[in-house]
Amino acid sequence: MRPLITLLTDFGTADGYVAEIKGVLHSLCPDVTVVDLSHDIPPHDVELARLTVARYWRRFPAGAVHLVVVDPGVGTSRAAMAVRSEGRFLVGPDNGVLSPALLVGDAEIIALPVSGSASRTFHGRDVFAPAAAALALGAGVESLGLPHEAPIVRRTPEAVRRDDGAVLGEVIAVDRFGNAITNLVGARNGVVAAAGRPIPVRGTYGDVAAGTPVAVTGSSGLLEIAVRDGSAAATLGLARGATVVWYRG
Amino acid sequence: MRPLITLLTDFGTADGYVAEIKGVLHSLCPDVTVVDLSHDIPPHDVELARLTVARYWRRFPAGAVHLVVVDPGVGTSRAAMAVRSEGRFLVGPDNGVLSPALLVGDAEIIALPVSGSASRTFHGRDVFAPAAAALALGAGVESLGLPHEAPIVRRTPEAVRRDDGAVLGEVIAVDRFGNAITNLVGARNGVVAAAGRPIPVRGTYGDVAAGTPVAVTGSSGLLEIAVRDGSAAATLGLARGATVVWYRG
Amino acid sequence: MRPLITLLTDFGTADGYVAEIKGVLHSLCPDVTVVDLSHDIPPHDVELARLTVARYWRRFPAGAVHLVVVDPGVGTSRAAMAVRSEGRFLVGPDNGVLSPALLVGDAEIIALPVSGSASRTFHGRDVFAPAAAALALGAGVESLGLPHEAPIVRRTPEAVRRDDGAVLGEVIAVDRFGNAITNLVGARNGVVAAAGRPIPVRGTYGDVAAGTPVAVTGSSGLLEIAVRDGSAAATLGLARGATVVWYRG
Repeated sequence: MRPLITLLTDFGTADGYVAEIKGVLHSLCPDVTVVDLSHDIPPHDVELARLTVARYWRRFPAGAVHLVVVDPGVGTSRAAMAVRSEGRFLVGPDNGVLSPALLVGDAEIIALPVSGSASRTFHGRDVFAPAAAALALGAGVESLGLPHEAPIVRRTPEAVRRDDGAVLGEVIAVDRFGNAITNLVGARNGVVAAAGRPIPVRGTYGDVAAGTPVAVTGSSGLLEIAVRDGSAAATLGLARGATVVWYRG
Repeated sequence: MRPLITLLTDFGTADGYVAEIKGVLHSLCPDVTVVDLSHDIPPHDVELARLTVARYWRRFPAGAVHLVVVDPGVGTSRAAMAVRSEGRFLVGPDNGVLSPALLVGDAEIIALPVSGSASRTFHGRDVFAPAAAALALGAGVESLGLPHEAPIVRRTPEAVRRDDGAVLGEVIAVDRFGNAITNLVGARNGVVAAAGRPIPVRGTYGDVAAGTPVAVTGSSGLLEIAVRDGSAAATLGLARGATVVWYRG
Repeated sequence: MRPLITLLTDFGTADGYVAEIKGVLHSLCPDVTVVDLSHDIPPHDVELARLTVARYWRRFPAGAVHLVVVDPGVGTSRAAMAVRSEGRFLVGPDNGVLSPALLVGDAEIIALPVSGSASRTFHGRDVFAPAAAALALGAGVESLGLPHEAPIVRRTPEAVRRDDGAVLGEVIAVDRFGNAITNLVGARNGVVAAAGRPIPVRGTYGDVAAGTPVAVTGSSGLLEIAVRDGSAAATLGLARGATVVWYRG
């Protein structure tokens, strides 16, 4: 496999920061394939970045290097990390964005040294990109620094089963189509209470009439609240953090 | 040529769906070059996606695989398709987005089987991406499923010549610069009536003064209404579906 | 190194123009790696494109071809250019976007001929992309046309040292995080007057409390005005062109 580096940032692309990172990657690793995953993470939204990393990091082949730069703490004492986990590599700040890859047993975590010549506002270019390029060229993760103990950060709480058998969860993200993605796992039937109304759990959007709310298990295995041919976020007023409760129905 | 897959979606990139598709493509076809064409098609805007596919599908070299995921009917009975047309391959839903490649005589159309394990909300990842990867690896389109009869879908009507010689058309898209692109073909002179006023047909924007409306033949061969150094959409109030009439002048 | 072409435009991606350019590049140079830098330059914002080019053009390895299509004057008499500078190549309109690469002593500048069959509204596809592909394939820049004398265009004035020792500058860009980037170079201490208030110059955002304005030297060496964990643009009302003055403090 040719060297492959994926890139997730909250930089947008209008400012040239992503361009500079790509210049560093292509200069240090001329044969690299750089894969844009997103630069549209909302600025400083570490939690959404973490949920996104959870979706994709294992879908790429072994050997892939995932560079993640959503880094509100740049220039402070937060550590810079390189991680090897299940054959993939991840590089980014120690603020929780890489947590999905740390939940796995064999994860090896390294603290990257920060040179005095690195810009104090742009570790993406001066610290993370060179580390990602080194890994793509075949360097061992342990060669990049000293072992590091990164806490597993997860802002979104897990859903909780209540004494009455219902499960209490919340909306963790709203996607571009207005679907409200919850932290409820595995519901295939029953009913969800959200936005003050009951919503049936069905197999797919097409199982209800147009304009009707429905809860379905989405592609990541989480229960999503949708409105067929519409936007659940707009119709039901659902936003991140909204309470949802699943009942056996 | 190395395997090449282009990608057109209405997913945006903030949600991780595009990242998952790319993970599948790189896992199944490690040597692939994935080319982002757009993820900014407005959600469920099949018609704009169709017009965009018409612009690019033949500009790529023979052997290119065009993956198109604008799929409001995912999870319903709409067919999933793979197409071979003029040496290119296209993969996407049977809802009209691939129609430009079906207007050609030699198009071979296959219905893709949908496995029971595929997510009912994300055929892009579980049905279309694996088919695109197989084609990029050299599989014949006929090896992917059974022949399919796809209707050619075209929501935008063609312009109509009236008895008085004028041609009646409409605005089919407004681009980022505020240019209103019409379905009028081949006008090199005369005058266009739009937004209640006459607009001269000229060779290029520079043929009129700044701030002045003008109609020119755009890069796709269609007549566009522009305002030099301005936005025709904003200045003239032109939007998709607005009536335009061409007169010999 | 494999052929590498970077792409900076103000096209967005919803309209298919970028897709057409990529089709041309991959058709003419099948082995090319096309690197998206940005398509989100605001429409016709030549000055922001110029500042962005300045950030990245030398970060890519020698041999890279930078294709820059921010071209409000397309179809007028403005020249189309190809440039060789410090081992990199640049292709784009003669409107100032390529000026950063012309400030270097050895720059060789060629005027590209415009064929009669080129669309008068889309030189990106019909003039610049073929030239970029030719350079990526190894053509010498001098083989593409005749020598051209391009003026160095720079709309933003340089900061000026006043008689009292203070330096008068301005905000030249506001980035996605709301940081106001100025044309003040090299200030490591002292104080900046902006938006009617004094702002201390410090080493990094973390040197002040959350919500506090601070001026730091950014990753491009320019002084930036930020608000820690906030937006300087929103909090202080700073926009492009706002006056900033540096005092020794």
